Amino acid sequence: MQRILSGIQPSGSQHIGHLVGALDNFTRLQGQGEAFYMIADWHALTSKYESVEEIWPATLELTATYLAAGLDPEKATIFVQSLVKEHAELHLLLSMVTPLTWLERVPTYKEKLQNAVADLGSYGFLGYPLLMTADIILYKAHKVPVGEDQLFHIELAREVLRRFNFLYKEEVFPEPEAVLTKTPKVPGLDGRKMSKSYGNCIYLRDTNDVILEKCTRQMASDPARVRKTDPGNPDICPVMDFHKLFSDDATVQLVDTECRRAGIGCFDCKKRVAQAMIQRIEPLREKIEAHLAHPAAIEAVLQDGSARARAVAAETMVDVRRAMKMPAL
Amino acid sequence: MQRILSGIQPSGSQHIGHLVGALDNFTRLQGQGEAFYMIADWHALTSKYESVEEIWPATLELTATYLAAGLDPEKATIFVQSLVKEHAELHLLLSMVTPLTWLERVPTYKEKLQNAVADLGSYGFLGYPLLMTADIILYKAHKVPVGEDQLFHIELAREVLRRFNFLYKEEVFPEPEAVLTKTPKVPGLDGRKMSKSYGNCIYLRDTNDVILEKCTRQMASDPARVRKTDPGNPDICPVMDFHKLFSDDATVQLVDTECRRAGIGCFDCKKRVAQAMIQRIEPLREKIEAHLAHPAAIEAVLQDGSARARAVAAETMVDVRRAMKMPAL
Repeated sequence: MQRILSGIQPSGSQHIGHLVGALDNFTRLQGQGEAFYMIADWHALTSKYESVEEIWPATLELTATYLAAGLDPEKATIFVQSLVKEHAELHLLLSMVTPLTWLERVPTYKEKLQNAVADLGSYGFLGYPLLMTADIILYKAHKVPVGEDQLFHIELAREVLRRFNFLYKEEVFPEPEAVLTKTPKVPGLDGRKMSKSYGNCIYLRDTNDVILEKCTRQMASDPARVRKTDPGNPDICPVMDFHKLFSDDATVQLVDTECRRAGIGCFDCKKRVAQAMIQRIEPLREKIEAHLAHPAAIEAVLQDGSARARAVAAETMVDVRRAMKMPAL
Repeated sequence: MQRILSGIQPSGSQHIGHLVGALDNFTRLQGQGEAFYMIADWHALTSKYESVEEIWPATLELTATYLAAGLDPEKATIFVQSLVKEHAELHLLLSMVTPLTWLERVPTYKEKLQNAVADLGSYGFLGYPLLMTADIILYKAHKVPVGEDQLFHIELAREVLRRFNFLYKEEVFPEPEAVLTKTPKVPGLDGRKMSKSYGNCIYLRDTNDVILEKCTRQMASDPARVRKTDPGNPDICPVMDFHKLFSDDATVQLVDTECRRAGIGCFDCKKRVAQAMIQRIEPLREKIEAHLAHPAAIEAVLQDGSARARAVAAETMVDVRRAMKMPAL
């Protein structure tokens, strides 16, 4: 049976980038193997160490979102990273065999340091791709659904586990491969990548009014189309990206044609995108809110999933300690 | 009750530097508080990750040495670091609040990198002073018996825990203080610091013949004293340092006087130092060998001690997780 592992940090509310880029993929894959979906609360500490009180509420919200998006605790193991201490143990062991330079050259490292809102200059922030390696290989995962920006991290995981298997002369870990999402990138309202730190998100808990407002008033469109009577170019218009993600094929076709001959104005076009988005998000939001009304039930899912994750993690650590000739309890 | 914590890496046999610089101190302190003495096998990985098969035998030998030197499992908790997973968890949490620069500026870091036999360029090697911080504060230790070269590490531990207490608004950790050994530095046979990597050690398991041989043939002495008829200067002679550590006061006095007036030759002087050393080491060696003949008994001491250490570590982690608002199991 193939193992699948992925996760999201509980460091804020989820937006449509998470939905299209991760959650849809998670749900699709849960029937295709033994799936583990993590709430990466230790990772959240890299940026939230000064506001730790936000992490547990964000954990409940992310779990509610997992469930609302279709993750089924009977099919997938939903668990909290910090409730499986083996992640920390394996991370420490891997740190002893991983050259510092491998982490210093991670492309996202210097990039994130530069764009950071919080102070990210911690030892743990440098090591977080290695914690990610531990997360993946602790479950001997074969497939890791991720976005394109995570590809280097999977490559690092492969390098580290190869070094481990080589040093300790045992094929303890299989090599994981990335499963990329099939949808195109989700742009933010301003055309950059959708990201909380850019303030350009449509959140899964946004009300219909807020979604309509954000689409019609904040969404960027083809800047060359100034007047409604100017023909537009959907090939470069960000609104079209959203249509492709949320509208049905007929609407996409119609909007494409009408835009090019100035048959539809940008406001109407954005209103249509908002309607399509609301059609998808409204039922999702209602499910999220319904789950959030019962935090004890969410916690039960997490306790149960974390116990299952611990059992698998404990098995792997038996192999790791044997290979490294460490004593057993 | 004051807590005491210290430890030694199981990365080779113990020499008289360990005896005088650490073990004597450990034994003296065990009655003065709740003492925890660790076998730091995760630390040993920083240099031994390519020869892990040496770590467990070295763990047994170090434990036998602890016991032979007078550590009493009824009075002190003797435990294995890797059998108390909380060290890894706390280390990971501390890594999120510890600036990278604090570790990069540890004086021993660049020094060790330069003098290294093994490749020490790992992420874990950079972080090992932080693992040491976790080791100390996990037991809320007040006193840490260490050598002078470790003072900076205690200072780092204090800085890190102050930052933790400040960030999480709770006095979770008390500030530890170093307890320096009262004996002067132990020189190696060549006059440099006694260290396995310099090949200048007298080991606690060296036979009497080997000790005599090393003292008379390898030990450095006042280089200005060429002939037996030249008067020597004990103030700068490394042999005198060994006399002060192992000979009785009368011998120290006698040798000092006779050396200055060329009344005793270097060979005789070194033979006397060897005899004094053997008087101390022979019974110790016999006890070490006796313990090593019963590895199951040693292992029982470690399992028992590690269980006690885990209980204390688990209590601390309850406080840590509460302060950091992390979920509990």
